[in-house]
Amino acid sequence: MPDFSIGVDLGGTNLRIAAVSTQGQLLDKVTLSTKGSLGPAHAIGEMCEAIRRLTEQYRGFGRFLGAGVGVPGIIDMETGMLRKSANLPGWDEYPVKQEIERRLAAPVLLENDANVAALGEKWLGAARDVDDMAMITLGTGIGGGIVLGGKIFHGMNGMAGEFGHVTIERNGVPCGCGNRGCAERYASATAIVRMAREAIEAGKAPALAQFAVSGADFSAEAIYDLAVKGDEAARGIFERVGRALGTLLAGAVNVLNLEMYVIGGGVVSAWDWFAPSMFDELRQRSCVYAATAPADPMRAAAQGATTRRQTKITRAILGSDAGLFGGARLPTL
Amino acid sequence: MPDFSIGVDLGGTNLRIAAVSTQGQLLDKVTLSTKGSLGPAHAIGEMCEAIRRLTEQYRGFGRFLGAGVGVPGIIDMETGMLRKSANLPGWDEYPVKQEIERRLAAPVLLENDANVAALGEKWLGAARDVDDMAMITLGTGIGGGIVLGGKIFHGMNGMAGEFGHVTIERNGVPCGCGNRGCAERYASATAIVRMAREAIEAGKAPALAQFAVSGADFSAEAIYDLAVKGDEAARGIFERVGRALGTLLAGAVNVLNLEMYVIGGGVVSAWDWFAPSMFDELRQRSCVYAATAPADPMRAAAQGATTRRQTKITRAILGSDAGLFGGARLPTL
Repeated sequence: MPDFSIGVDLGGTNLRIAAVSTQGQLLDKVTLSTKGSLGPAHAIGEMCEAIRRLTEQYRGFGRFLGAGVGVPGIIDMETGMLRKSANLPGWDEYPVKQEIERRLAAPVLLENDANVAALGEKWLGAARDVDDMAMITLGTGIGGGIVLGGKIFHGMNGMAGEFGHVTIERNGVPCGCGNRGCAERYASATAIVRMAREAIEAGKAPALAQFAVSGADFSAEAIYDLAVKGDEAARGIFERVGRALGTLLAGAVNVLNLEMYVIGGGVVSAWDWFAPSMFDELRQRSCVYAATAPADPMRAAAQGATTRRQTKITRAILGSDAGLFGGARLPTL
Repeated sequence: MPDFSIGVDLGGTNLRIAAVSTQGQLLDKVTLSTKGSLGPAHAIGEMCEAIRRLTEQYRGFGRFLGAGVGVPGIIDMETGMLRKSANLPGWDEYPVKQEIERRLAAPVLLENDANVAALGEKWLGAARDVDDMAMITLGTGIGGGIVLGGKIFHGMNGMAGEFGHVTIERNGVPCGCGNRGCAERYASATAIVRMAREAIEAGKAPALAQFAVSGADFSAEAIYDLAVKGDEAARGIFERVGRALGTLLAGAVNVLNLEMYVIGGGVVSAWDWFAPSMFDELRQRSCVYAATAPADPMRAAAQGATTRRQTKITRAILGSDAGLFGGARLPTL
């Protein structure tokens, strides 16, 4: 009988908890509201209660190995403190790991959410057949994680994989991090909306302009819908997203030479609209990629097959469950 | 009694061979001419004869563990073939490892020269007190190597650490690799000469112009000498080198979050002229660096001390011996 562990995705809005067997079987999944306004102690109390219910329920299934928790923010890997989180106001400097461990009396591992998602895709997702991979998550911002030998590569203090703030345009758009031209300013959902607004202001996007005044939510999804319907200006934006992502990936491929790079996050729905320019840019900008690229990268990505010693770039397949699976994987490593 | 191994630096001009004890003591060093025109078999014959003389000489010292050979080019790590080398014409697709092993009847390891230099600085040089580091070598081009847990990180097929061809200027200067704006076009010795010629053409560098027509060798060293003498145009070029290197390092720090980055190669002599702008650029462009930087990075680099959990960027200390020591380290790992 296989053992099991708990994966937790502690987001700004939702608190998701899953029981997963060591063989990767999803046993159960619970979604709670994070209720940020009630503070960390309340949320952790609810989380631990839900975990206790799940571990009771699967007691006969096998041993409970512990819980892995993914959080959006900077973590002190030694102490398990959440140093800083933009999405969890009031949680700064909170001893998240210690508080959960105290309540559960079981091993708890805390990780950055992008790292946990990478580990999930490595364990059960797009990268399950490779040992070394990186994942780039395109959401409101851009997150990233690197997995080497099946384990998260932390770097010196857990900050490795910050792909979102790599400069891709030296004199580019200012970023909240203090830099200019970060990848996040060109390939995140936020960047897509900004580029659409700029195209409208430049008078180059009549359909987008019409949509913007319609009162409907002017989101990256809405711009994606217009691209699907054939709007050239909307398509042009995703073409630019692909070029930005290709520039970012070219640097990553040159430096890391990994077997696989997985692109995840909400923006990846627009894969068909940004991937062609992404691959084109990659081939031009990375000699390592050019030497190791599949002949038809779009088809290689669709097939999911890994030919040895080819650099494979593909979309994530686990969606938001990547974080749950990755979290559950942590106590088993 | 410690054992010993042989490190070989197989360059386009010189063939350098050293016997090194497993404790890092340099026992002996031999320099031969590579005599490229006589082809690989001749050079390898001479190399193996010199290695045999050294191993005979130190036979009483301890066991001979094997040889590690650094070569400038792309290596097939599985077969030990030299795939392609710009500096060793006529060596393409030559079975270097096999030919040396056959003659010596001892284990031989083949590595890219930049990787071997990184391993040397890790073992006995600037990075001897850290486990995870990268080295960027600023020479005619820019080479790089990454060491994790004291061993060379190869990536999928030995191409990891290609820092020289990371894009730092999206619409920048064309590079021989097919890309535009590679770091190598802004921070190598070749780039320094190009930027000086451009400054002369723009009429902005009277002292450089005067030097250029003097008949003396118009090299990066000469431009460095002018910078030392106080020429503003020459200093401006090294300031730009620092900005380019800072941009490159900022991406590396964000992605890798290593304890130490060592800058080596001939250009590092100009450290005092490029390092201030390099650190300034790094702090602006890397949130990971800003969170982990020493208060005074120039002093931290000069002191050579490593405060834990600080990102340390410093100059190499072994010079061209880094490759010999790194090569000798290979058979011992």
